[in-house]
Amino acid sequence: MISARTSNHICLCCPKQTARITKAVLSSRPAYSTGLGYPVALRLSPIVSQSSSCRPRSFSTSRPDHLKDFFPVKETAYIRKTPPAWPHHGYTEGEMLAVVPQHRKPGSVSDWLAWKLVRLCRWGTDIATGIKPEQQVDKSNPTTAVAAQKPLTEAQWLVRFIFLESIAGVPGMVAGMLRHLESLRRLKRDNGWIETLLEESYNERMHLLTFMKMCEPGWFMKTMILGAQGVFFNAMFLSYLISPSITHRFVGYLEEEAVHTYTRCIREIEQGDLPKWSDPNFQIPDLAVTYWRMPEGKQTMRDLILYIRADEAVHRGVNHTLSNLNHKEDPNPFVSDYKCDADHQRPNPALKPTGFERSEVIG
Amino acid sequence: MISARTSNHICLCCPKQTARITKAVLSSRPAYSTGLGYPVALRLSPIVSQSSSCRPRSFSTSRPDHLKDFFPVKETAYIRKTPPAWPHHGYTEGEMLAVVPQHRKPGSVSDWLAWKLVRLCRWGTDIATGIKPEQQVDKSNPTTAVAAQKPLTEAQWLVRFIFLESIAGVPGMVAGMLRHLESLRRLKRDNGWIETLLEESYNERMHLLTFMKMCEPGWFMKTMILGAQGVFFNAMFLSYLISPSITHRFVGYLEEEAVHTYTRCIREIEQGDLPKWSDPNFQIPDLAVTYWRMPEGKQTMRDLILYIRADEAVHRGVNHTLSNLNHKEDPNPFVSDYKCDADHQRPNPALKPTGFERSEVIG
Ligand SMILES: [Fe+2]
Ligand SMILES: [Fe+2]
Ligand SMILES: [Fe+2]
Ligand SMILES: [Fe+2]
Repeated sequence: MISARTSNHICLCCPKQTARITKAVLSSRPAYSTGLGYPVALRLSPIVSQSSSCRPRSFSTSRPDHLKDFFPVKETAYIRKTPPAWPHHGYTEGEMLAVVPQHRKPGSVSDWLAWKLVRLCRWGTDIATGIKPEQQVDKSNPTTAVAAQKPLTEAQWLVRFIFLESIAGVPGMVAGMLRHLESLRRLKRDNGWIETLLEESYNERMHLLTFMKMCEPGWFMKTMILGAQGVFFNAMFLSYLISPSITHRFVGYLEEEAVHTYTRCIREIEQGDLPKWSDPNFQIPDLAVTYWRMPEGKQTMRDLILYIRADEAVHRGVNHTLSNLNHKEDPNPFVSDYKCDADHQRPNPALKPTGFERSEVIG
Repeated sequence: MISARTSNHICLCCPKQTARITKAVLSSRPAYSTGLGYPVALRLSPIVSQSSSCRPRSFSTSRPDHLKDFFPVKETAYIRKTPPAWPHHGYTEGEMLAVVPQHRKPGSVSDWLAWKLVRLCRWGTDIATGIKPEQQVDKSNPTTAVAAQKPLTEAQWLVRFIFLESIAGVPGMVAGMLRHLESLRRLKRDNGWIETLLEESYNERMHLLTFMKMCEPGWFMKTMILGAQGVFFNAMFLSYLISPSITHRFVGYLEEEAVHTYTRCIREIEQGDLPKWSDPNFQIPDLAVTYWRMPEGKQTMRDLILYIRADEAVHRGVNHTLSNLNHKEDPNPFVSDYKCDADHQRPNPALKPTGFERSEVIG
């Protein structure tokens, strides 16, 4: 079973990459799947090349070859498959469609600070990714309003997604690591938090790898990503040492923004503003199809973003909830079965945008 | 289903803890299992109290209450169960009995340095845990000789295990985190290494939590644990940034020592040198029974150490192998299916004490 889907990806921001991948697939090397997931059946369809004019000017002036050592595009050719570290739990279509942007009103000064810090980060990201004023949504309802005068382009969306997802994978890993180290040095159990936090960071990395298959950012964005991780990792590390609760609130607000971003993107796809993604020849990467186990006939870009948005809604609910708990004593309600859980139903964080209050999940 | 096994643990180094746990179980609070795993059937047997004289003098002079904030013994009472983050893959008895101490000859200067550093760490640990000269094994074959003039006591073993396991959980987490961050900022896939590294660190933490249920170290050892983690975490962090390959070799040698330590312990149990652990009333903690899914009738201390030793043998083989690979390009042979894998058999690291050479696992 040979997967040649990789040769059919529409690269929206780097036509060179498309050419390179196509060449690799057609070369004499064994044509194993280069995707992260299990190979899927051979599906050939015409390569749709995009002109480089779809790229925002500031992100793609360097030739990718110059950055080869730092960002090798080459995949390891001889791997057949690597099953996902954490298999995705899946969603029903109803669950995915029920996700809406929502905002948890800050209940304390620290909540308010966390929220304002997220707003500041978004403002900075808008500038860095070249969002024009007419592309912004209603500023008085920035977390819930999704209509803008002018849509983003596909390339703008991709650059934004890649930047945000490369950041989004940091907090879960930092928090999981710090709780692991604490359990080791305090000689006490963790109560199930680590698992959910590490899984969150893995899930965010899968988002990143999915978008990466569609787009290779230019040197400006790559430098931004390196710098942002340096700053963000250290900030998260210190912040989690000082107050896990405020840090989870901050991540909860960050995920509100993520749900908002993907909701707006889905709306623009549905309105026909992003024709490249509505093109019936457009194929999403193999690894996404296998990771989310997307059913046949439900593998459009809109479907993909619906899955990713549902993931963000889960992170939003989980982090707002964890922020409401006592991080030293309370079990993680999303993996433990406990007192109030008589009907064996675990709380569903996707359905609770503002998170569960402690009294709702801890007996 | 109420588990009262916790009340029957023989605490070898802290009789106060036994008393406290017994009281908690008999108190009016709901008597859910306080173990990490699924509750097992009610099994009552007499509490075997130990006198405090079994504790090495230097490790237990503080009253545990003084350290309550730092090392709370109290478990969260209302959790019923938290399934393991990574379910254990299990071993056959033959696999466990086949494990022997073995040493990979250093093949380069850096290998030799890594090995000597491990030897230095062991020397320091011997001093810190009060191992007397007559309790040491043949110094000319320190990694494989298991006979000593005088056995360790149960309490000496436990303090040693707890100290070592609290350190052992660090490298996998550091390496997994650094590879995760690298994947995010370099925008490239990880090839399956992260999962194995994080699982290793979880497995080591389960070793620690198991021993912790049998023993609460005194203030001296607790302070040592805090300090050692501070030093070791930073050393691992820097070392992995500089050379993942040397770091994996170092961990491989560390795991050689672990296999050696547990082999010697099994030998002393079998020789009848550790009567408290051969006592038919001695019960290992619930969480161990559930984590390793130990079969009925095979739940003695010797059985437990056989499982743990097999885990260490896996880490030994995995880390020596990862050290032999190209950490930037090679897939993790222990989770990926790839070229040389035609018969669908993944390489078994437990059976390869010196690790697989790159040519054996990468096509
Ligand atoms: Fe994400
Ligand atoms: Fe997210
Ligand atoms: Fe261990
Ligand atoms: Fe180990």
